Amino acid sequence: VAPPKPRPPIERPGGNEDAAVERIARALQDASGPVRPGEIWIGDDAAVVVAPPGRLVLATDAVVAGVHADLALVGPADLGWKALTSAVSDIGAMGARPLHALVTLCVPPGIDLDALARGLAEASAEWRCPVVGGDLSSAGQVVASVAVTGVLDGDLPPVTRAGASPEDWLLVTGPLGGSAAGLRLLRARAGRAGGAGGREGAEVPSDTATALVEAHRRPRARLAEGQAARQAGARAMLDVSDGLAIDLHRLADASGVGFRLDEVPVAAGATRQEALGGGEDYELVVATADPDRLADRFALEGRRPPLVLGRCTADPGERLLDGEPLPPLGWQHAVE
Amino acid sequence: VAPPKPRPPIERPGGNEDAAVERIARALQDASGPVRPGEIWIGDDAAVVVAPPGRLVLATDAVVAGVHADLALVGPADLGWKALTSAVSDIGAMGARPLHALVTLCVPPGIDLDALARGLAEASAEWRCPVVGGDLSSAGQVVASVAVTGVLDGDLPPVTRAGASPEDWLLVTGPLGGSAAGLRLLRARAGRAGGAGGREGAEVPSDTATALVEAHRRPRARLAEGQAARQAGARAMLDVSDGLAIDLHRLADASGVGFRLDEVPVAAGATRQEALGGGEDYELVVATADPDRLADRFALEGRRPPLVLGRCTADPGERLLDGEPLPPLGWQHAVE
Repeated sequence: VAPPKPRPPIERPGGNEDAAVERIARALQDASGPVRPGEIWIGDDAAVVVAPPGRLVLATDAVVAGVHADLALVGPADLGWKALTSAVSDIGAMGARPLHALVTLCVPPGIDLDALARGLAEASAEWRCPVVGGDLSSAGQVVASVAVTGVLDGDLPPVTRAGASPEDWLLVTGPLGGSAAGLRLLRARAGRAGGAGGREGAEVPSDTATALVEAHRRPRARLAEGQAARQAGARAMLDVSDGLAIDLHRLADASGVGFRLDEVPVAAGATRQEALGGGEDYELVVATADPDRLADRFALEGRRPPLVLGRCTADPGERLLDGEPLPPLGWQHAVE
Repeated sequence: VAPPKPRPPIERPGGNEDAAVERIARALQDASGPVRPGEIWIGDDAAVVVAPPGRLVLATDAVVAGVHADLALVGPADLGWKALTSAVSDIGAMGARPLHALVTLCVPPGIDLDALARGLAEASAEWRCPVVGGDLSSAGQVVASVAVTGVLDGDLPPVTRAGASPEDWLLVTGPLGGSAAGLRLLRARAGRAGGAGGREGAEVPSDTATALVEAHRRPRARLAEGQAARQAGARAMLDVSDGLAIDLHRLADASGVGFRLDEVPVAAGATRQEALGGGEDYELVVATADPDRLADRFALEGRRPPLVLGRCTADPGERLLDGEPLPPLGWQHAVE
């Protein structure tokens, strides 16, 4: 914990916040293209944007250095990418399309703010979600908090966690555990560089290792898949942020159903335990009565086929994998 | 800085995040009233809300313990209040009305999360801005980051920082320095409790002292005034968050004007220096060609009369108070 540094009530000539904000704003602006007509982005008290009529979707997510990202293993740019991507993923998990992002950066001295902004800008360009405002503060620890607005195109309802019914199929948009396995490889490499460890990553082919590290550093938000699932009549959906097992329990709790899983698609080079409890893969879990329709829609849009996990059941107390009880493996923050 | 605690990739049975989120959600919900029809608030991947048609206003602001709030002097509830109020104030400074808030809380073990949520809930009720979603994370330091959406009622443009013209009058919605003076009193009391200091607060009458401490702990957002100023044709506006002097420089920079100030309204018990550089009073500075119209509108809505600071001038290099150059006193974060 940083020692309390009460805010001095008067002049603080050492501060350079305005200059830093201007630099960050430029980097973000370059990634997003010109400010749209009638809009005001970074630089005033608030942003003014034109939102399409209809229901607005709102999500926020934070990445805390030392908790969600180890800056000894990944760079500030990766942290920025992850913060924006994880917030955008929450929008996608409702079947919505992201519109605009707000970014709050808390940074200690010595952090490469330009790299942090670059990662945010890259994610902003990738997910077509301009950063239109933000806040910058000093702090004892890097925190990047991103709020995103989105829109539900068309008249279909949002896809919540609560709509699954008994007999619905459970599918996932991709194999899991890649992010956790990538973190394991990065830790092993760091150990090797220090003269110790290294065994854990040794048996993985180098292109697999590269993919795993990429999965950890630059996770993907399944935006097209989320919108396609909504169009295909998905009944419930969430993104795997804390771990497949705990997130499945959350969907089942919200929907009042149980589940029986037969398959857990494991990313190449990852372990089954990482696939179940690793989290941060941001693949979408979809409950649907009509898996063929889902697969057809994904094929139509050139997406990977969704992978079957199992089915929902009528007994909310039933939470099985291969016939055995599945505990809610995954990440929960320890708070009071 | 907290020591890096890399996220364990698998089960972490000690976590109790879901239970804490449920408790916080209940407190926030009680303050906001029932979820509006067709909306989804806390508990899913993202919130779904119905926004009025038109331009959307977006702002975010963070309060960091040890930087913006000293938890040895104010409580977690005050920190929560301030985080939501400062973000809502940014919406008001455009002449807009807040709609919905998202809250990200980063907390170390041992923080009274219920008190933090209570302060957020109280501000949410006061400013009629329900908290519809959020994120909760462990961290080494308390950070409360709040993103707020708002709407511009009617067809008038938003009031930016950039619209002031030479000869415009500069006014402010209230006397300044109260928050900084309140902090000074709290520090003096803490010193007295420890057996030292105390002189700094001794000469202030007790009801004045109470008002100053309240100004520091529970600042007010001038929402009605901001909307009234927009209705009255204000040309530029911002809220005094970092210090009157630095914020006036920002308005003048954005508008390409200079200024000559004759008056600085100082809160009872505060010093002129605190009024100029203290910040966090969240009073609005308004530039207008027609100060009578502004005053009439404020009177019509039962608001305190705006106080004259001075006028804008044509020379952007001219930044004068009582004929002397006014440096940009106020807070800037020290970042790279």
